[in-house]
Amino acid sequence: MSDRKNILFIMCDQLRYDYLSCAGHKTLQTPNIDALAARGVRFSNTYVQSPICGPSRMSFYTGRYVSSHGATGNFVPLRVGEHNIGDHLKPLGMRPVLVGKTHMIADQEGMKRLGIDPTSEIGVHHAQAGFEPYERDDGIHPDLVLKPGVKYNEYLKERGYDGHKNPWHWAANATEGAEAPRSGFFNDVANQPARVTDEESETPYMTRRAMQFLAEDDGETPWLLHLSYIKPHWPYIAPAPYHDMYGPSDVQPVHRSEVECEDPNPLAKLYQERISARTFSNDERREATIPAYMGLIKQIDDQLGILFKFMEERGQLDNTMIVFTSDHGDYFGDHWMGDKDFFHNPAVKVPLIIADPDPAFDATRGTVNDRFVEAIDIVPTFIERAGGTVPEHIIDGRSLMPLLRGEDVAWRDYVISEYDYFMQPFSPKTGRVPLECRTYMIANSEWKYIHAPGYSPMLFDLTNDPDEFVDLGRDPKFEDARKTMHYALADWSLQYRQRETVSEERAGQMVGLEDKFGVLIGYWDENDIEPPAQMPDYASGLENG
Amino acid sequence: MSDRKNILFIMCDQLRYDYLSCAGHKTLQTPNIDALAARGVRFSNTYVQSPICGPSRMSFYTGRYVSSHGATGNFVPLRVGEHNIGDHLKPLGMRPVLVGKTHMIADQEGMKRLGIDPTSEIGVHHAQAGFEPYERDDGIHPDLVLKPGVKYNEYLKERGYDGHKNPWHWAANATEGAEAPRSGFFNDVANQPARVTDEESETPYMTRRAMQFLAEDDGETPWLLHLSYIKPHWPYIAPAPYHDMYGPSDVQPVHRSEVECEDPNPLAKLYQERISARTFSNDERREATIPAYMGLIKQIDDQLGILFKFMEERGQLDNTMIVFTSDHGDYFGDHWMGDKDFFHNPAVKVPLIIADPDPAFDATRGTVNDRFVEAIDIVPTFIERAGGTVPEHIIDGRSLMPLLRGEDVAWRDYVISEYDYFMQPFSPKTGRVPLECRTYMIANSEWKYIHAPGYSPMLFDLTNDPDEFVDLGRDPKFEDARKTMHYALADWSLQYRQRETVSEERAGQMVGLEDKFGVLIGYWDENDIEPPAQMPDYASGLENG
Repeated sequence: MSDRKNILFIMCDQLRYDYLSCAGHKTLQTPNIDALAARGVRFSNTYVQSPICGPSRMSFYTGRYVSSHGATGNFVPLRVGEHNIGDHLKPLGMRPVLVGKTHMIADQEGMKRLGIDPTSEIGVHHAQAGFEPYERDDGIHPDLVLKPGVKYNEYLKERGYDGHKNPWHWAANATEGAEAPRSGFFNDVANQPARVTDEESETPYMTRRAMQFLAEDDGETPWLLHLSYIKPHWPYIAPAPYHDMYGPSDVQPVHRSEVECEDPNPLAKLYQERISARTFSNDERREATIPAYMGLIKQIDDQLGILFKFMEERGQLDNTMIVFTSDHGDYFGDHWMGDKDFFHNPAVKVPLIIADPDPAFDATRGTVNDRFVEAIDIVPTFIERAGGTVPEHIIDGRSLMPLLRGEDVAWRDYVISEYDYFMQPFSPKTGRVPLECRTYMIANSEWKYIHAPGYSPMLFDLTNDPDEFVDLGRDPKFEDARKTMHYALADWSLQYRQRETVSEERAGQMVGLEDKFGVLIGYWDENDIEPPAQMPDYASGLENG
Repeated sequence: MSDRKNILFIMCDQLRYDYLSCAGHKTLQTPNIDALAARGVRFSNTYVQSPICGPSRMSFYTGRYVSSHGATGNFVPLRVGEHNIGDHLKPLGMRPVLVGKTHMIADQEGMKRLGIDPTSEIGVHHAQAGFEPYERDDGIHPDLVLKPGVKYNEYLKERGYDGHKNPWHWAANATEGAEAPRSGFFNDVANQPARVTDEESETPYMTRRAMQFLAEDDGETPWLLHLSYIKPHWPYIAPAPYHDMYGPSDVQPVHRSEVECEDPNPLAKLYQERISARTFSNDERREATIPAYMGLIKQIDDQLGILFKFMEERGQLDNTMIVFTSDHGDYFGDHWMGDKDFFHNPAVKVPLIIADPDPAFDATRGTVNDRFVEAIDIVPTFIERAGGTVPEHIIDGRSLMPLLRGEDVAWRDYVISEYDYFMQPFSPKTGRVPLECRTYMIANSEWKYIHAPGYSPMLFDLTNDPDEFVDLGRDPKFEDARKTMHYALADWSLQYRQRETVSEERAGQMVGLEDKFGVLIGYWDENDIEPPAQMPDYASGLENG
């Protein structure tokens, strides 16, 4: 069993990079996650490829930028045939298993066009992003589009919450209310407990499901378990005792400046006008909501403590790489914005901790690495961990293994994130058709540059304004910096990311193919032939004549 | 039968834009093609998406840029699932049929991964770019990699050319020679006749095959017949009487300047050093070869005369749109270069004539249109001709139908072409790995700008230097022009071209989806709810309780 290399890939949803005690949060204590960081490396400059669930996750699960895989929005299916995490890991003998959320939307039209039965092995492989769905639960189950078969709802009904067809909403994400349950979609109940108990709530339920899988481990097939929590994503509502474990005095100061409201970039202004921005720009409402968010994180930390202990007792900590991250952050009033969907650090940066018991990684244990890491680096890291070679013609990201081994390798100079705002309620106001609703962020150690076609760019001087308060996007003095960043963005964009059918190795062998095939292009006579060109017997002209 | 709308899509291979009498050639007469232009529109500014067969054709057959479809090189398979011409036209009731060349390379690995049997209907559909292969013949059949089953070889053997397993090479593309047949790959025989007769040579053979298909026309199912000639592509060898129909005195002056050899861009210099460049920069060799090329074009024109007469007699000219074009051009010593693969006009511009008998197009008959047209416009034109709506989320090109109807529509300002030089024999000298061997051309009415990562750019002032002789790519005075063109190139690149799974119409309906689903993001209480948000009965909290 010791030769096996497993991976536990833990993802939270909407967890900010700075809401862990190991990342500097002053009042929130996350000792189990901190202990994981102490056993591995915390990557303090990790960015998601899109500050929203679906596209970000598709980048996590494909190792490709959003404009490479094309699933730019939460309800945009991932094109059938896109290489997913299973395409890369299954051939290496690894079993990728899902417990929780992926936000994967299957390309039903594409499967039909290619004759793929959605219920076949290949169909399920595609529809589940390459994971075996041990328990899939995308977490948000609105009443109006509730799908049948949500196991968690069945569980809650068995527990007696059978007064509504959708106890996910009306038991786990609602409070008692004065006369009737009240939906957690209203943040005015964030400081009240959920109707369910801690044990019955989503995070412990999913943790137990993960432990059930781990208990079934046959000790032979290496697995990748993707434990993907929906929390601390809204509805911001926690069960007792987490609902009031923190209070307004524990909330960190809001991160905003009046200068951000003075003639903001018109696109940023649309974000500042969203309902979530209005709610969380109100200090009282912000301070009433964030404690619930902190409680949900605390609950995750407690559950991970239970999970890690469970694994330790079974010896599974000895042969398992553990990765802890999130799909994006949360503004919570920073920069006068709410929710996510834009490119300031609270939304676009995420925590990333990787701990591996293998002695190869001893040199870096307990360290913090501030290199620019992107979500697309996770799949290539897993491929290398599983003993494979990263296919550079398919994967946009880079394996983090050299950094985990402590090697001083050359690394990328910038990070990229993209956002397709076509679904935003404000998009009709922009007068742009959906395909035009594009935004790009490129950040290096000096500048963060945001390009949105049809709008002036935004620019932040990270040296003198690390808080990202002062938008220099229209300041004539910074034309050179904008040009530098725009050229870097163009360099990034002008790369072949769809040339997936020929590997770099194969391509390297195809040089001068015409000579090798005996196809002479523009040769006048035999004097133009130079070895090693191979040709039939051109002197006789009749190879077999 | 009159309601049916057929399409005859004629493609030549390596035919320069200026080697037709209607396009201004002074000594080459192409009366049948000229007559076609007189019945329709000649588009005098038509560019291919890549100046080489495979990638250019994949753009012709998908309506997508090369970096969109990913088949960047001649032997790079088109990814399975890429929407091809058949995906677009078959659902509209049209039967796309191939006679001749496509250069389509099937994605065998992708088909295997998706469980698609290559011999199944879907497998064949993919492998043939959506065409029904009435007769597929990619034209170049080198001895060393000769595949069995080339029908044209069987035909030649039946005609008595059975002295070699590959009569395509040693009969149709060879001369008698003094003692033995001599390969047409050597240009020193370009002024000698092929061993086969006119009737037996490739262009008449394929024309007869097209007529056989037309003779089988059931008069009901509308068809698109892709008659795709391999000629006038090298080997530059024509059968009698075409081999000496033209002589050195008919060859147009070479189009080059000494200034192009003075400190050229290092990448351009690599092209100037190719064998084909050396051959065709030699005036004597150039003038000995081009007459064969002209003869091959003349032969195509004669064959099209026969074909059009055949169709006229059957009434098929009355309901058939005819398109005539080429996949790229040929340098023939212009700019000190040979063959194609770079971005000067002789390589990247092609002829394009579209003639449609429908009265809707009467206004433009016999006109020349100088708008910027790209190869990717062909498929959307066909879609609209077949009564469909162009799916803008999949197709990068634009339908030419408004231009054919004579409408004064807004149009594109620039054209793009790309080239992946990874297979070039010089690529190892560049020290770049295959994925880095990228070049991009963007041209508007003022400038042509060539960007190759790792090299200085190239820039031509088309107003003052329409001949493209003076490279301003390193001239400090033209920094502004280079920046303008680089930004335009970035704008082009920074577009979503893989978001294929959600149509623009569907995307337009998804705005504000969260409200419609009863998902409230950041709402404090009921006061934040504005119509038309639909929600369950939040007051009672128990929809069915």
